[in-house]
Amino acid sequence: MSETIATKLSSLGYKLPAASAPAANYVSTVRTGNLLSISGQISRNDDGTAFSGTVGASVTAEEGRKAAEIAAINVLSQIAGATDGSLAAVSRIVRLGVFIAATPDFNRHSEVANGASDLFVAVFGDAGRHSRAAIGVSSLPVGAAVEIDALVELAEGV
Amino acid sequence: MSETIATKLSSLGYKLPAASAPAANYVSTVRTGNLLSISGQISRNDDGTAFSGTVGASVTAEEGRKAAEIAAINVLSQIAGATDGSLAAVSRIVRLGVFIAATPDFNRHSEVANGASDLFVAVFGDAGRHSRAAIGVSSLPVGAAVEIDALVELAEGV
Amino acid sequence: MSETIATKLSSLGYKLPAASAPAANYVSTVRTGNLLSISGQISRNDDGTAFSGTVGASVTAEEGRKAAEIAAINVLSQIAGATDGSLAAVSRIVRLGVFIAATPDFNRHSEVANGASDLFVAVFGDAGRHSRAAIGVSSLPVGAAVEIDALVELAEGV
Repeated sequence: MSETIATKLSSLGYKLPAASAPAANYVSTVRTGNLLSISGQISRNDDGTAFSGTVGASVTAEEGRKAAEIAAINVLSQIAGATDGSLAAVSRIVRLGVFIAATPDFNRHSEVANGASDLFVAVFGDAGRHSRAAIGVSSLPVGAAVEIDALVELAEGV
Repeated sequence: MSETIATKLSSLGYKLPAASAPAANYVSTVRTGNLLSISGQISRNDDGTAFSGTVGASVTAEEGRKAAEIAAINVLSQIAGATDGSLAAVSRIVRLGVFIAATPDFNRHSEVANGASDLFVAVFGDAGRHSRAAIGVSSLPVGAAVEIDALVELAEGV
Repeated sequence: MSETIATKLSSLGYKLPAASAPAANYVSTVRTGNLLSISGQISRNDDGTAFSGTVGASVTAEEGRKAAEIAAINVLSQIAGATDGSLAAVSRIVRLGVFIAATPDFNRHSEVANGASDLFVAVFGDAGRHSRAAIGVSSLPVGAAVEIDALVELAEGV
């Protein structure tokens, strides 16, 4: 097996949490063909506490960037849980949906979303270069500041 | 033909409405390969009235759950209309996008979205176990409380 | 090469801008199989100014429709940039996500989204008939009024 997502994250100074179970009657990942769809992951820390609040009000853009990074780590955790956990299992991060709980006058969504984008590229290199849509939403589950979902292309043979 | 979506829904106490036509220059479903993309379906009842309002204000979480169920039934209606209507036409519900018109301080999105998730699993069993993203939005078409779109994997030969 | 997106747009009275580079660590398009995922494109004019504001407040529904058209043109620009630019490169517009910065009481999202839908059908004909989800969001990057992302099926051999 090639280097794992867990060891790569560790080399970047992060810890890969266990993939969390969904809170309800759905699943964290579904595979169709060589595509893996990952359910929206919120900015919840490994200890279960959520990075909550509204960006532009109780949460700054810089803090929002950190929340996006946390949500991205949870997406990585789900990818690892649905595969053998190797970096090589992922041939491409196709798309990220970055949902930011934000005030009507907030306009720095790109900076917030970069917390996720930068991490994916740091972990996967060119295979981590994704398309994305970053939008401001009125609220998110359990008051989270950021939620991220993903579409991933798996390598042949995975 | 295997059991139909309509008869299964009926056994669960629901009625499958006719698939509604889109209100504009788009279509309700597009197929690409074995994937079917379903346009966002709002919480509009079969009689044309919309389940409208904002969850966390004029609509409670429990009512929002019901609105999600109505939107889910409309997604089922579109799936049935794009296939032979059999349960067997669907090999997997890949993903649901659950958009909830919600206040900034609402945080029970999962409960609302479960109204859709539970119905899909009741209708399709394991094939209905989907990935999802549930988010709170500022407003939806015609003031609807919930809108749901979907990506579905069709069975071979469909 | 068949007629191009640029010449078709020109015959409709529009100008195809150069595909803009993403503002950060992501890419404007990712291809997986014969599908092309296009990053969210905002309602930014070719001169760099954004069509900004909130529909239902500082922006009317009719102006929002125009903003959706501008965002759609930017999606077309990205499609052209990722292919040979011909209309024939696109076998189907599978899905549009139409995100509208809108007030909680706005309810004419369909009219706004039609600014994009009508343009896609004008450009691609039947191949432009897409599924879509139109939702109202709290805010968008750089204060844009509309953001649109897309999933496109490419023709064989492209």
